[in-house]
Amino acid sequence: MNERVRLAPVGLGRWARVLSRAAGRGDVIELVSCYSRDETRRRAFQDEFGIARSAPSYQELLRDDSVEGVVITTPNDTHLPVIAEALAAGKGVYTDKPIAHTVEDAVAIAKAAGESGRAFAVGHAARRLAGSREMKRWIDDGRLGAVSLAEANFSNERGLELTPQTWRWHADRSPGGSFIQLGVHHADNLQYLLGPVRSVTAHARRLHTEAEVPDAVMSIVEFESGALGYIGAGWASPGVYTVNLQGTEANLRYDLDFTHWDEAQHADDYSTLHSQGSGEPERSVVELPRTDMFREQLEEFALAIRGDATIEVGAAEGVRALAVVHAALTSSQRNGAAVPVAEVVEAAGGAAVAEVRA
Amino acid sequence: MNERVRLAPVGLGRWARVLSRAAGRGDVIELVSCYSRDETRRRAFQDEFGIARSAPSYQELLRDDSVEGVVITTPNDTHLPVIAEALAAGKGVYTDKPIAHTVEDAVAIAKAAGESGRAFAVGHAARRLAGSREMKRWIDDGRLGAVSLAEANFSNERGLELTPQTWRWHADRSPGGSFIQLGVHHADNLQYLLGPVRSVTAHARRLHTEAEVPDAVMSIVEFESGALGYIGAGWASPGVYTVNLQGTEANLRYDLDFTHWDEAQHADDYSTLHSQGSGEPERSVVELPRTDMFREQLEEFALAIRGDATIEVGAAEGVRALAVVHAALTSSQRNGAAVPVAEVVEAAGGAAVAEVRA
Repeated sequence: MNERVRLAPVGLGRWARVLSRAAGRGDVIELVSCYSRDETRRRAFQDEFGIARSAPSYQELLRDDSVEGVVITTPNDTHLPVIAEALAAGKGVYTDKPIAHTVEDAVAIAKAAGESGRAFAVGHAARRLAGSREMKRWIDDGRLGAVSLAEANFSNERGLELTPQTWRWHADRSPGGSFIQLGVHHADNLQYLLGPVRSVTAHARRLHTEAEVPDAVMSIVEFESGALGYIGAGWASPGVYTVNLQGTEANLRYDLDFTHWDEAQHADDYSTLHSQGSGEPERSVVELPRTDMFREQLEEFALAIRGDATIEVGAAEGVRALAVVHAALTSSQRNGAAVPVAEVVEAAGGAAVAEVRA
Repeated sequence: MNERVRLAPVGLGRWARVLSRAAGRGDVIELVSCYSRDETRRRAFQDEFGIARSAPSYQELLRDDSVEGVVITTPNDTHLPVIAEALAAGKGVYTDKPIAHTVEDAVAIAKAAGESGRAFAVGHAARRLAGSREMKRWIDDGRLGAVSLAEANFSNERGLELTPQTWRWHADRSPGGSFIQLGVHHADNLQYLLGPVRSVTAHARRLHTEAEVPDAVMSIVEFESGALGYIGAGWASPGVYTVNLQGTEANLRYDLDFTHWDEAQHADDYSTLHSQGSGEPERSVVELPRTDMFREQLEEFALAIRGDATIEVGAAEGVRALAVVHAALTSSQRNGAAVPVAEVVEAAGGAAVAEVRA
C-alpha cells in the first residue's frame, strides 16, 4: 500500500461519524482535516477522530493542498454549492445520498463533476450489502429466470421525531420526506438490480408526522425491461428494510435489521437472504459473505482519486435514483398518473445527462 | 347437533374437491347431491365423496327439495346465472371468490341475493386464517398504533401453465388474470383489516404468460382512513402469500407457505406471524391458534341457512373486493391515475349497493 489517500469530512454530524468510523476500519484513507461551520462541533470531531487539523472556513479547507478529496454529509439542499466549490478547487468529491434535493441541482452537479474530470462518488451504499450483491448474481447468472415483480421497503420511525430545527422537517430542503431519505436507497438498488426505470406512479401522504414532508409513500415503477417494481418508504413505524424478487425460476427475499445499519461491518450479520425455487415451496437460506458497505465505497472513492479504482456509483446513478424520487412526487401530485423519469430529468435541463446514460 | 345441513356442490372441478373435503372434516354439513354438465365428472365426484345422488341437470338439482343450499365453484363468468337461478329456487348460495368476473354481474348478484332473503356467502376465506384474525386483533386493540402502510402479495406460477382450454386464459371470462384470481383475496383481507378502500392506482402487465390476461399486477390503494396499501399479484413465479402492516407502535409480518393452501386445516402450520415493537428491532413470533378457513366458512354458511349463524362475507364484501380489482384494471388503462372504487360500482349500476355499504 502506498501512502494513504488524504480526505476531509465536510459537515460533521451523525453521518460524518458513521463514515469516518468506516474509513478508520481500513488502511486506505487518512482523515487530514475537517470542516463544519460550528467551531465547537469541529473541535469535538477533530478530537474524536484524532484528525491533525480542522479548517476555520470551507475555503481554507479547499486551499489545503494536502486534502485530496472531501466527504460531504451536509444537508441535501447544500450539496450543489458545496460540491461545485470542491470540484473547482480540484478535489475529489464523495457526497452522501441523495445527490441533491432537486433534480435541477443534481443535473448541475453531474455536469460540474463531468467537466471537472475529478473523482465523484454518491453514497448509495446499500447496493454493496452482501445481500444486494448476491441478488445481482442470481439475476445475472439466470438462477431467478425472468423477474416480473420486485418489491422493496425502507422505513423507520424518524418522521415521528422530527422538529422544525432539523432540515429534514422542511419541504423545500428535503422534498419527499421518507422517500428522498429512505426510498432513494431502493431507487438505486432496484435500478442496480433490474436496470433503468422508465416511469413512476406514486402516492405520497403526510399521515402521522408533524413535519412538512410525507411520511407514507408507495410507488410503482416500470422498468425499461417491462418488469414492475414497488418501493415503500414510511417514517412512522419500526424499522423495515426488505427486497423481494419474483422470477420465473425462483424468488429471493432479503430482510435486514435496520438498527445495525450504521455499523455497516455488522449489517450482514443481521440480514437474511432466502431463496425459493420453482416448484419448491421450502425456503433455503443463502449464505452471505461479510462486507462493509461504507468502508468499501469510501476506499473505492479514495483509490479512484489516485486513478487506482473505478467509481461504481457516480453522478449518472445519483441522478437516476433522485429522478425516481421526483417522478414519484410529481405522480402523486397528478393523482398517481405515471410520470416518465426522462420527463423530470429533461425538465431539469438534464437532456445531456439522459443521453450519456442511454 | 341437529340434522346436518344438506348442501350440493355445483361445478365439480379441483376447487369443489377442496371444499367438499373441508365440509367433510366437520359434522355440520351433508353433501346430498351434486351437479356438473359433464356426466363422467359428476359420477366420479359422487363416488369420491360418497354422495347419495347427482343431478342430470342444474334445474333438476334445484327442484330437489332436500337440497338446502348450493356450493358454487363454476367459472367466474357463470356466477350470475347460476346464482340467480339457485336463489330463485329458494336455495342458500355459497359462491367461490371472486363474486363474479365483472362488477355489473357482481351488483346484479348482490341485488338478487338481497331481494331473495336467502343465505348468501362469498368464499373470501383468507380473512379467516389465524394470522389474519390475529392481525385484526392487534389493529382493534391498538397494539399496532396507527397503521400507515399495509403491503400484501399473493402470487404463484399458474400463469405459466395456462392453456386456451381453461377459462382463466380468456380476458372476457376472467379479466385481470392474477389480480382477479389471487389479488382479490388481499382486496378483501386489507379491507377487512383496515376498512374500505377509497381509490386504486395500478399497473397490470402481461409479461411471461401465454394467456390473454395480465400475470404481473401491482396496485396502490388508498383507504378511507388515509392509510396506503399495496397489493402485488403475480402469476409467473413460485408461490408467495404475505401481509405486512406498519403501525406507529409496531409492525406485523405474516408469511404463509402457499403450497398448503388447499389443505386449510394445515395452513396455519405453514405460516408465521412476526411482530416488531416500537424501538425494538428484534422480531417476536406471535403464536397462532389452529383454524380451518374453508371448513369454517362453509359451516357458517350452512348454519346461516337454518338461521343459526350470521354470514361474515356476503354480497357487500364480495362486491367491494371485486370493485378494487376492476378499479385497478381501469387505473392501469389510465396510466396509473387513481380510480375511485365508488366510480366502478356506480358505473355498474351499484349505487344502491354502495349506499347500503356506506
